[in-house]
Amino acid sequence: MTLASDILLANRLADVAGTVIRPLFRAKLAHEIKADFSPVTEADRAAEEAMRRLLEVEAPSDGIIGEEYGSERLDASRHWVIDPIDGTASFMSGRPIFGTLIALLQEGSPILGVIDQPISGERWVGAVGQPTLFNNRPAKTRRCGNLADAVLAATGPHHFSEDDGKCFTALTSQTSRARTVFGGDCYNYGLLAIGHVDLVVEAGLKLHDFAALIPIVEGAGGTMCDWHGNQLHCESEGHVIALGDHAHIAQVIDLLDYCN
Amino acid sequence: MTLASDILLANRLADVAGTVIRPLFRAKLAHEIKADFSPVTEADRAAEEAMRRLLEVEAPSDGIIGEEYGSERLDASRHWVIDPIDGTASFMSGRPIFGTLIALLQEGSPILGVIDQPISGERWVGAVGQPTLFNNRPAKTRRCGNLADAVLAATGPHHFSEDDGKCFTALTSQTSRARTVFGGDCYNYGLLAIGHVDLVVEAGLKLHDFAALIPIVEGAGGTMCDWHGNQLHCESEGHVIALGDHAHIAQVIDLLDYCN
Repeated sequence: MTLASDILLANRLADVAGTVIRPLFRAKLAHEIKADFSPVTEADRAAEEAMRRLLEVEAPSDGIIGEEYGSERLDASRHWVIDPIDGTASFMSGRPIFGTLIALLQEGSPILGVIDQPISGERWVGAVGQPTLFNNRPAKTRRCGNLADAVLAATGPHHFSEDDGKCFTALTSQTSRARTVFGGDCYNYGLLAIGHVDLVVEAGLKLHDFAALIPIVEGAGGTMCDWHGNQLHCESEGHVIALGDHAHIAQVIDLLDYCN
Repeated sequence: MTLASDILLANRLADVAGTVIRPLFRAKLAHEIKADFSPVTEADRAAEEAMRRLLEVEAPSDGIIGEEYGSERLDASRHWVIDPIDGTASFMSGRPIFGTLIALLQEGSPILGVIDQPISGERWVGAVGQPTLFNNRPAKTRRCGNLADAVLAATGPHHFSEDDGKCFTALTSQTSRARTVFGGDCYNYGLLAIGHVDLVVEAGLKLHDFAALIPIVEGAGGTMCDWHGNQLHCESEGHVIALGDHAHIAQVIDLLDYCN
């Protein structure tokens, strides 16, 4: 398969997930809390099932790593990493700032990523060697003069361990409270890719939470790495930095290094 | 003026604010940080100016209390309390979960409130003695079996003082991390009024942040009060509870009383 056909398939996967999710948004849904304390609803499960069915037909030799239904063909050279609803708590509370995440890994490296927000109809597509697209138009991160002026986003303090929280506080001592927003999950990375957020810092993410974000952020001119500045990979422990303007990466890492 | 004509005027105020705000959403805007550490943009100012112009024509004897341009005719018996963009940080970061807030106070008590989200086209209207409307359809909070099952929302930990943060932590020790969302400002109260959020707990709100929310939450069957269970009023110090199911109010107050 070519990258172009992979991109088409990724768009179709986002389409089928959105078709499942839209009628269930703000519907009465039961939910369960999983062992990792994250919630799951019928919408998460049904959207992942719909994507897996399409993958079995269109890419039967590729592996699949899904948030809700686990892994298949892990020995394949390519894997589709899917998170039907990243931000299930936002979805459950009726906030249209969750997203469907789809990544394609080639030998473990993400070469393609999609963030789809099915309620607002916003979609980001990133692919190696290509500019990231936001609703089919080029997306670009913005320059940021000083870290003190950065718009900083993080999903929430309850995702940080006590030590991680101290590191985050060291960072926020140099950023502006007035420009800090919480909540948003993957949507924050999409906003970074179109130049409205400058910095996202999170911990506790899993491969299905961050794999799709990398091609999107990097293809828009931004930087993604772990809290030590290392490239994210399949075994990363989920400490993630996304930065729109690479000029500040050393300062961000230095501040987050507070407790290490 | 009758309440019906006041509601019509409140809707027109929301209309003019939305007309100003929509083209400025995700535009390149400068911003300043005010003395209270909250940000303000050209959109906040222009939307408030537009609303004040309309009020001067349509309700010239009523007082005005605005977030950006202060108070006029404070000795009047009625006051329009307007916050052009509640959630300016969300607005600045491109997140469509901010809102325009409009309240009408009669002898200091809010008798009418509007939350308007001009990007998604969502509007909540609450008025004393009438059911709250969400996009012209009746809105209702939902029952909640146990506080442990409640969807809890708060704008962010940086709005809490150290003591308030301890009280909030006492509360969240009895609620579910998986069902807690951060960010959202007034939008969370709108979601509570339509039964997707069960509890909102915040501190540091000002009259223009909470006045409009009271008729909306109460007209949808919910409860609003301060952290001690007292009715909110013009002089309240901005510790706010909104609860969809009144059955849990004593427990919420008791938990928040931790540090007092």
